[in-house]
Amino acid sequence: MSTVTQTALQSSYPPILPKPFNANQPKTIRLYPLSNYTFGTKENQPEEDPSVIARLKRLEEHYENYGMRRTCEGILVCHEHNHPHILMLQIANAFFKLPGDYLQPEDDEIEGFKQRLNDRLAPAGNQFSGSNANEEWEIADTLAQWWRPNFETFMYPFIPAHVTRPKECKKLYFIQLPKSKILSVPKNMKLLAVPLFELYDNTARYGPQLSAIPHLLSRYNFEFV
Amino acid sequence: MSTVTQTALQSSYPPILPKPFNANQPKTIRLYPLSNYTFGTKENQPEEDPSVIARLKRLEEHYENYGMRRTCEGILVCHEHNHPHILMLQIANAFFKLPGDYLQPEDDEIEGFKQRLNDRLAPAGNQFSGSNANEEWEIADTLAQWWRPNFETFMYPFIPAHVTRPKECKKLYFIQLPKSKILSVPKNMKLLAVPLFELYDNTARYGPQLSAIPHLLSRYNFEFV
Ligand SMILES: [Zn+2]
Ligand SMILES: [Zn+2]
Ligand SMILES: [Zn+2]
Ligand SMILES: [Zn+2]
Repeated sequence: MSTVTQTALQSSYPPILPKPFNANQPKTIRLYPLSNYTFGTKENQPEEDPSVIARLKRLEEHYENYGMRRTCEGILVCHEHNHPHILMLQIANAFFKLPGDYLQPEDDEIEGFKQRLNDRLAPAGNQFSGSNANEEWEIADTLAQWWRPNFETFMYPFIPAHVTRPKECKKLYFIQLPKSKILSVPKNMKLLAVPLFELYDNTARYGPQLSAIPHLLSRYNFEFV
Repeated sequence: MSTVTQTALQSSYPPILPKPFNANQPKTIRLYPLSNYTFGTKENQPEEDPSVIARLKRLEEHYENYGMRRTCEGILVCHEHNHPHILMLQIANAFFKLPGDYLQPEDDEIEGFKQRLNDRLAPAGNQFSGSNANEEWEIADTLAQWWRPNFETFMYPFIPAHVTRPKECKKLYFIQLPKSKILSVPKNMKLLAVPLFELYDNTARYGPQLSAIPHLLSRYNFEFV
């Protein structure tokens, strides 16, 4: 990317400003630079299921015993050169996923989600994995819901017509990152900061859920500090 | 679509309900059936510009005189058989667009937008085109913003890196339709109710902006009455 400095970008021809254009929007979100976050590693976290079939079989058992599965994922946003970047896990140098997981049947939604985020990203060891670690996650707006109508791989960002009993609902939440934070990543995964322009219109590489993130964030205005 | 009645859908095997899963979401939106709305026609509203080049030229003149152009479009939602449908204009049996238009430089955002919606959809005649007509539009959340970085056709759901002076910003707002309403459509256009499942993953037919609407609405829960 360009190395033009902030100062050089300033101009003696200030732009003509139109009248205000920020009605009916959420409050401006402050983003911090990627370099504010510290990344460590921790033990491998292997996939729970050996195959897609095994995963869907486990979903079916969950559904029969506890009803619709509730899955929570976080959209963690920071910036590089004043452009938003999303923190994503890459597994086995191949597919990408957001931090998060399905909830246990007895979990409260938000507390359970924070626990899943800690499982994935909190540093190992007592001082971080205790209940205080939960306070560090600020779970903000729901950005999307994806429904799985059947015990199949397809999910949709709506409940298809005439589907009354979806098998899983996955919610994506905006995670308001603090000014700085230590994140620990399982050794079999990488944590990458992917810019919005890389995700946009890139379903081929990132799949329908991740490539839609730029749309989900487009109602926000950002402040880059 | 299916003609199964509400009654027939009910079952003597109630589903197992998981614990609550509606944290951090906007309030549930009530949608009314398409049949609640009455559609009339009015005079032709021809395109302002004869070509894409003429349109971009006019944008350039606007930008030089008034700064970034502000454009407002409405996502009007109703339902058929309990599935959300979006009201869209089709022009010359070809391309689709949302109701709305660019604001005049002196316009206030919301009042100007209501006026543009009336220009397009309010019945002609004194009793509807007066200031009372504006009260009928309930402009709700901003759902998306699209920016045009240059005097070109491409727009993005973010400000591309290093772009400091976008030429146009188009905002899409959720329009909360009242229980019933009379809408009048210019004779050279059709108003269609397009279901989310038709828009989803259909950039080829609807373009990047309209095909993203299912994503933008996926954080809401709907109540179909
Ligand atoms: Zn750069
Ligand atoms: Zn970058
Ligand atoms: Zn149907
Ligand atoms: Zn329909």
